[in-house]
Amino acid sequence: MEYITCLCREDRKLLLLITSLSAFAHLLTHRLIKASAENLLKGGLFGIDLNKTTAKDYVAIKKQIRTKSLQTLLDTPSLKSRMIPESAGIIVGCAYISTVLVISWMANLPLLATHASMCSITTMLLVGFVDDVLGLRWALKIVFSVIACAPLVNSDASGRFLVLPVPFRGGIIQTICETILPGPHAGFSLGLGYWHTVIVTLICVFCTNAINIYAGVNGLEAGQSVLISLNVIVYSFLHLTSSSEIHRFWNIALLQFPFIAVSTALFRLNMYPAKVFVGDSFTYFAGMVFAVTAISNTFSKTLMLFLIPQILNFLFSLPQLFGFMHCPLHRIPRWDCHNDRLVHSNNLTLLNAVLRCTGPLHEKSLTTLLLVLQAACGALGLLLLELVRFFY
Amino acid sequence: MEYITCLCREDRKLLLLITSLSAFAHLLTHRLIKASAENLLKGGLFGIDLNKTTAKDYVAIKKQIRTKSLQTLLDTPSLKSRMIPESAGIIVGCAYISTVLVISWMANLPLLATHASMCSITTMLLVGFVDDVLGLRWALKIVFSVIACAPLVNSDASGRFLVLPVPFRGGIIQTICETILPGPHAGFSLGLGYWHTVIVTLICVFCTNAINIYAGVNGLEAGQSVLISLNVIVYSFLHLTSSSEIHRFWNIALLQFPFIAVSTALFRLNMYPAKVFVGDSFTYFAGMVFAVTAISNTFSKTLMLFLIPQILNFLFSLPQLFGFMHCPLHRIPRWDCHNDRLVHSNNLTLLNAVLRCTGPLHEKSLTTLLLVLQAACGALGLLLLELVRFFY
Repeated sequence: MEYITCLCREDRKLLLLITSLSAFAHLLTHRLIKASAENLLKGGLFGIDLNKTTAKDYVAIKKQIRTKSLQTLLDTPSLKSRMIPESAGIIVGCAYISTVLVISWMANLPLLATHASMCSITTMLLVGFVDDVLGLRWALKIVFSVIACAPLVNSDASGRFLVLPVPFRGGIIQTICETILPGPHAGFSLGLGYWHTVIVTLICVFCTNAINIYAGVNGLEAGQSVLISLNVIVYSFLHLTSSSEIHRFWNIALLQFPFIAVSTALFRLNMYPAKVFVGDSFTYFAGMVFAVTAISNTFSKTLMLFLIPQILNFLFSLPQLFGFMHCPLHRIPRWDCHNDRLVHSNNLTLLNAVLRCTGPLHEKSLTTLLLVLQAACGALGLLLLELVRFFY
Repeated sequence: MEYITCLCREDRKLLLLITSLSAFAHLLTHRLIKASAENLLKGGLFGIDLNKTTAKDYVAIKKQIRTKSLQTLLDTPSLKSRMIPESAGIIVGCAYISTVLVISWMANLPLLATHASMCSITTMLLVGFVDDVLGLRWALKIVFSVIACAPLVNSDASGRFLVLPVPFRGGIIQTICETILPGPHAGFSLGLGYWHTVIVTLICVFCTNAINIYAGVNGLEAGQSVLISLNVIVYSFLHLTSSSEIHRFWNIALLQFPFIAVSTALFRLNMYPAKVFVGDSFTYFAGMVFAVTAISNTFSKTLMLFLIPQILNFLFSLPQLFGFMHCPLHRIPRWDCHNDRLVHSNNLTLLNAVLRCTGPLHEKSLTTLLLVLQAACGALGLLLLELVRFFY
């Protein structure tokens, strides 16, 4: 409570505006997704839930989809029930963008950085949706995620320095850093120069893809996004509500409160058994929201502490991502239809690693376990952050 | 030439960067559209060219589309040849956004207003594409175009004043204006207050829809956009290359050079006989490009002088748009298949008005005539602008 009471009257009004519009956005998004499910199906955007379909059924359904008209498929109840609307992320994303724009318009604050952020987020949502509809090659998606972060690189001035931690100061490491980094250096604050562009780009590419590849069971994509967002909000409450940092707190609140609102609406419909799928539009969009929040408020190193499961999953996946091992389209676990359990497959993902440790699990239990892991890693991240502060 | 030679060395480098990257964008867009035609068809995004199809054929094709699977349709050459890929605008729009972001990143200029502009443009492109894929209700599209202009309202500070023309100064009209407008007033410069928000919003809503409803024959949407863009560029060359206005010139060049480059690429493939359709993604996107260029560089009144055919078409359409007359989905002319001529229908559009004056015309001749009309109106607009200057 001490954090909220220390906010001035203007600040409390702003907090009320952001929370009330976010709450409204949650309700609206939930309704919109339900109302659009039929439109998504009619637009040909649907998927089959592989964790609830045997291989034989899957082949049969795929054959029907190939040979019958969309109208016929939708008129056959037994088939329609297997077609889960895909790309709900586009509705979530549009609701999010609208909410942030309306809040920043109503608050009439000099939040110029917001426009660069929103530009990046909207571009990435667009790329995700185009991918859902038309299917883009992965190389093109990487190119687009690099281009989408250009506004961030241009607008972010404060993140161009690296403050050397205390143990590294004055020694050989400082000398090495000063030689590698182009400067200008000022004491222990080293100028990153062009490395800043490289780092920002890498963070954007990592974030946009990290959630996309840590997926495959109902509710995981939306659930992890909600938890990461919660983590970011807790971090900003604990560290950025002092009067000198309050503008960063508002920047984060403006981007994250609406995000958590729309993502929970999606989570409610995407959790087991999923009524909609999130689509690449959501995973790319969510990743970019975290990337821009962190970069435009200069806590990108801190953000990595909240993405421990995503980093682990990325590291596990490296051999398949870089082609040292065969990489199928879906790297999900195998469904044991007799016991309704998920069994680990040979693909290198965190999901399969967890299943190897625990043995076969029901889909719902696996999602719950993974989300508990996410929350635990987030708490660990916040704790590590406290420790790291001793070195600055 | 005097305009270009008066640019300093830095400026010439920037002009070279913008023109060369725009030229590259043109070639890339042309290739990308051709390469994506198959993807658009596979994504279910296609249309039937009504101006080349008899009513009987149309019903037959529609029936096939309803009853056969997409794969079967694409495997039947006689049918596939009638399916024109729709929504090429999404490729054009993505190419445009990428080009502008790359230029503004490479030029590393303090073009902060660009981010607000790009945010609005990207949002509108997204709305257009979602409309193409899922079909949005018109009310929702209006709401989105209002929301999409929020960044402009927030960032545009200089357009909040109305400078009273000389003949109106000091008289009853000034008194009325000073009473209506909330101020603050400073001499003949009247503060628009909240009217500024209203005006910006109306311009955005008008522009985004103006091109969308002035359509219906091959090449018209892309062609008119290219001509309006040319008009804007000529205007900026004539009026904004003085050293005090040069930043406005660059803002316009950054937004319009890439636009003209990608739109001409689309025009080449959309002109008679159309190999692709532009889709709502293009018309909304193009309209928003003009709206943001004009608003963020405070020449929105001038822009209206370049949109005379669009304004006429809007005025003609009012009875149908506001429901006083029946408004079918397509308000195009009727095709006389025996003579391959377009004949006016009973719908209230500029196309039908022109056809009433000229009598039946071939589709290609009609497009050419309408584009000549657009160019003539544009020249008239530039002339009127010279006259208007005497009153300031």
